[in-house]
Amino acid sequence: MKIAIAQIEIIPSIPCDNTVRIISAISSAKKNKADIVIFPELAVSGYMLGDMWESEGFVRECEELGEEIIKASNGIYVIFGNVASDKTKKNFDGRIRKYNALFVAKDGKLIHNNSTSYPFTIKSLLPNYKEFEDPRHFFSLKDLAFENNADIKEYLKPLEIECNGEKIKLGLTICEDAWSSNYSFSPIDIINSNKDVDLFVNISSSPYTLVKDTKRHKMYGDISSKHNIPLIYVNNVGIQNNGKTVYTFDGGSSVYDNSGKLLITADRYEDNLYYVDIDVKNKIFPNPIEIKEENEYKLIYDTVIYGIRKFMKSIGINKVVIGVSGGIDSALSSAMYVNAIGKDNVLLVNMPSKFNSNTTKNLAKTLADNLGCAYMVVPIQESVDYTVKQLETSPIIKDGKESNLTVSSFVIENIQARDRSSRVLASIAASFGGVFTCNANKTETMVGYSTMYGDGAGFFACLADLWKYQIYGLSNYVNKEVFKKEIIPEGTINIVPSAELSTAQAVDEGKGDPIKYDYHDYLFKYLMESWNRAILEDIADLYIKGELEEKIGCQKGILNKYFKTGSEFIDDLERWWKQYMGMGISKRIQAPPILAVSRRSFGFGNRESQNRVYYTAKYLALKNKILD
Amino acid sequence: MKIAIAQIEIIPSIPCDNTVRIISAISSAKKNKADIVIFPELAVSGYMLGDMWESEGFVRECEELGEEIIKASNGIYVIFGNVASDKTKKNFDGRIRKYNALFVAKDGKLIHNNSTSYPFTIKSLLPNYKEFEDPRHFFSLKDLAFENNADIKEYLKPLEIECNGEKIKLGLTICEDAWSSNYSFSPIDIINSNKDVDLFVNISSSPYTLVKDTKRHKMYGDISSKHNIPLIYVNNVGIQNNGKTVYTFDGGSSVYDNSGKLLITADRYEDNLYYVDIDVKNKIFPNPIEIKEENEYKLIYDTVIYGIRKFMKSIGINKVVIGVSGGIDSALSSAMYVNAIGKDNVLLVNMPSKFNSNTTKNLAKTLADNLGCAYMVVPIQESVDYTVKQLETSPIIKDGKESNLTVSSFVIENIQARDRSSRVLASIAASFGGVFTCNANKTETMVGYSTMYGDGAGFFACLADLWKYQIYGLSNYVNKEVFKKEIIPEGTINIVPSAELSTAQAVDEGKGDPIKYDYHDYLFKYLMESWNRAILEDIADLYIKGELEEKIGCQKGILNKYFKTGSEFIDDLERWWKQYMGMGISKRIQAPPILAVSRRSFGFGNRESQNRVYYTAKYLALKNKILD
Repeated sequence: MKIAIAQIEIIPSIPCDNTVRIISAISSAKKNKADIVIFPELAVSGYMLGDMWESEGFVRECEELGEEIIKASNGIYVIFGNVASDKTKKNFDGRIRKYNALFVAKDGKLIHNNSTSYPFTIKSLLPNYKEFEDPRHFFSLKDLAFENNADIKEYLKPLEIECNGEKIKLGLTICEDAWSSNYSFSPIDIINSNKDVDLFVNISSSPYTLVKDTKRHKMYGDISSKHNIPLIYVNNVGIQNNGKTVYTFDGGSSVYDNSGKLLITADRYEDNLYYVDIDVKNKIFPNPIEIKEENEYKLIYDTVIYGIRKFMKSIGINKVVIGVSGGIDSALSSAMYVNAIGKDNVLLVNMPSKFNSNTTKNLAKTLADNLGCAYMVVPIQESVDYTVKQLETSPIIKDGKESNLTVSSFVIENIQARDRSSRVLASIAASFGGVFTCNANKTETMVGYSTMYGDGAGFFACLADLWKYQIYGLSNYVNKEVFKKEIIPEGTINIVPSAELSTAQAVDEGKGDPIKYDYHDYLFKYLMESWNRAILEDIADLYIKGELEEKIGCQKGILNKYFKTGSEFIDDLERWWKQYMGMGISKRIQAPPILAVSRRSFGFGNRESQNRVYYTAKYLALKNKILD
Repeated sequence: MKIAIAQIEIIPSIPCDNTVRIISAISSAKKNKADIVIFPELAVSGYMLGDMWESEGFVRECEELGEEIIKASNGIYVIFGNVASDKTKKNFDGRIRKYNALFVAKDGKLIHNNSTSYPFTIKSLLPNYKEFEDPRHFFSLKDLAFENNADIKEYLKPLEIECNGEKIKLGLTICEDAWSSNYSFSPIDIINSNKDVDLFVNISSSPYTLVKDTKRHKMYGDISSKHNIPLIYVNNVGIQNNGKTVYTFDGGSSVYDNSGKLLITADRYEDNLYYVDIDVKNKIFPNPIEIKEENEYKLIYDTVIYGIRKFMKSIGINKVVIGVSGGIDSALSSAMYVNAIGKDNVLLVNMPSKFNSNTTKNLAKTLADNLGCAYMVVPIQESVDYTVKQLETSPIIKDGKESNLTVSSFVIENIQARDRSSRVLASIAASFGGVFTCNANKTETMVGYSTMYGDGAGFFACLADLWKYQIYGLSNYVNKEVFKKEIIPEGTINIVPSAELSTAQAVDEGKGDPIKYDYHDYLFKYLMESWNRAILEDIADLYIKGELEEKIGCQKGILNKYFKTGSEFIDDLERWWKQYMGMGISKRIQAPPILAVSRRSFGFGNRESQNRVYYTAKYLALKNKILD
């Protein structure tokens, strides 16, 4: 039995184009004598569409295009994901009933097993965490069983097809149905409760985040070996977003034999058809392959490059302007954009004030030379001075009396940052026919260490899901493995990270950011990315037990290096907690879309309310213990 | 039986403060000889907390504070909402099991009916639409029944209490449990299936939006009369937000007799205890009162004023800077802030360029005089000219060759807008010890008719859920009903709306915005606020049928006024659709938090992905018909 795995790119909310590509893939699969071709979940519509599902017209369009796909199934089994509506029933929001469904078609007709009254398979488990919100729009098989007072076991049955004279029982599931460990039932276990399934098929639309590919291989391999049944997993490529966060879809479509061994795995981010020939009845499979462990920075690099390329394509713009300071974030950003869209589409702009050192100005110039990009120097001191003077000399009139503002040195720091982004970069970008980038990393994004409408601004923040240590790691990777020479200047990698907005941040004197990256990176990551969200009481508890360094994963001795007393530790902890939960949130509300790399990016998958900062009673007690 | 309705303010994510106020309210209720005191849903924690629910420490703190409330129930029945966790079980996301629960305590102990194994009532229906996402964090009673393979009817039983020697059966529900028309069962109907309930109690945390109070009275009144049982509805006041959208909670707590007549209703936005004396056994009630129909603009006015006050309090800032152009949006914004926080906390800044007319400059000055605010004029032409010159004369160097940018007149429009907000207002605000406002309305927010980091920026957009016609309506209301004199100048109300960024927008020549508010306001509202999201095929269909004007609610004859041909109609339609679904979304991603007034505000309750703009096949066919 020859199976075509259609790891196609899906363009979210453009069902017509997706359908054209699906039908063309069916045609290729037929030419290549495939018996079955399998497409991803919601292959017609895309997965992340916001509330577009609330349009009955849009849903109808997807279903009509689904009919075209069914018509194209002459001589081949076509398995694909699409929305299925039932206008006679309602969703819980009162809108028409919608299912996230899997269709099997052959010879222009749907094939089904009559387990429900519908001619398609309905997703049983609807994820509702992180960036996922399936039940906002879809009715689950579980809900249907509840509504009909039916046993879900009656709804979850294999589907028998005939292939080259053989009867094959397919165990069909959609994405989360396979990730059932936290749910009260396992759709896959139920489907195979009679132990008669010959082949599992799972169609997915599963966003990529670091280490997810390893988890997927383990999870699907375990299912295969547990049931002694081969499994085919099909995922799409492309990017999709929910406004605040942009996700890449790596594909990673794979086939596992009945012992859970990997037989084939599709190339990452490749829009392609992959074929596998398996005899599921006699359990004859190709030789298994090794699961390749990839370098973390290769994975990050591939994801960021793909994310940039596809995001720019989706917004229809191909040029960017990047403010380069001589520091590491903007240098890495420049290198990534040059690799993603080509040096001729990238304009680097250095915008020194009187606080910028010759060291960093030269590093910015060197970077531009190394990359071969267009380069521009636009000094901002004159404009900043003009602004300060204008504001201090324009009278405020109230009740006939005049007074004047005083602009503090702290305010002048922010004036510089806004002058660079909102006055210079935004205007250059518009004149250059492009957009300007936000070069923020995750560490500063977390604590709002940036200026709104200044360095916090931009069209896209492709590095804002990388902690500062990952910025360094990726920079080294780019030099060593991509360019294979020093493109990001060593000076940029070695200099102390600094905003250079005042004399207190003079890099040549080794002065820089208040963030102690070798500690805060790890503290922040623990607070932000722990599955059970950590709060200050968790940190204080670990500190008292002497387990903090080990638990957050920083070097041993860091706490002693930075904090002479418990009081210093607490001051630092509360300072950044306040920033994280206070100003940090207000800045993230207005931040650019962030490219997701980690399992938890700031943005839509990490819901935040702008509330007052809170300390639990337990934390306050532990704090007293530390201060004692 | 005397019942205290504790319509208290709940501060989201500050459980300690909420508990102090709950215990103090219990004490007042006892002093006033109440038999029962009823608090809102999630009264300890607040309702909109983002993903703070994922912290086990935070949940534990809420539960521990709940114990304090239970301890304070000496001599009085205390009904309150709080989170309840079960560490032996998991939520679907794998985190500890959490219920949105209702507790009944007396004499330091919980009273329960043993219908489940828990000593509290669990919310059955978890809303998952608009701004609601209960099932992201909570496990429903429905899920529990499914998990235990139990009949939900066994779980939904009245709770008997003894009050002054009488046994009273309470039918207890939480918020959505009463709004069950789209669900497969009605918790209230099931609880009263033996027709033995004496009193329904519904505790809620229900955000306010226009006309919701009328809907609530109708819905709760209908339940009472259908079952012939009185009902008490308790909702909190305060504001809560989910980052992108700020919701006011109006309270509106009410009591209905057994025929559905309103007995008392709490004052809007009042943090207070209200008492009602009812004899539910003998059905003796106070005289019913009339449901007061309020003027729409009074409702909007109260909501915006309350929203501003509470939002500023929550972020701990009490001064604002407002850029005033002489136009209606900034004038209304100024009047609202002056009313909300006092004229001494408001600084108005006029920032003319060469395109600003004397007419609008004078109107801005008049407004400041009328309001008695501090006023400042900061012209921007010099700075804009400087920027254009600097950018056009700073060479771009590439491959050893120099070139120069040309700054177009369109780009200069945006330079002006950014100069005002990011250079002038942001810097003045910081020096003034405050923040600067975003004065955007909903019409321009929808189609992105604003400049990012320019007039689209600010700390809060308190008018961005009001269509332009509502901006006028509210302005007239403010003059006539609040100030009772002309505070917003008539000239501002009568002038053509214009950005005054070029000679094409000269107000004295009657030239202004490309938006035709008397048509587009209604078209946009129909597209954006329809429950079944409208797309272009719906509009084209109505146009062909001649029903468009009536359906969207604009004046008759508008289409003929603006469009000579079908082609002109289509061009306009597609122009704004592209803006709405394209640039509009990218701007909203970085927009300030919006105060919700309508039933659908932009922001978190209206999920949007930044995707390519799509036209369905049906629309393209209808368009061809129109163009024929």
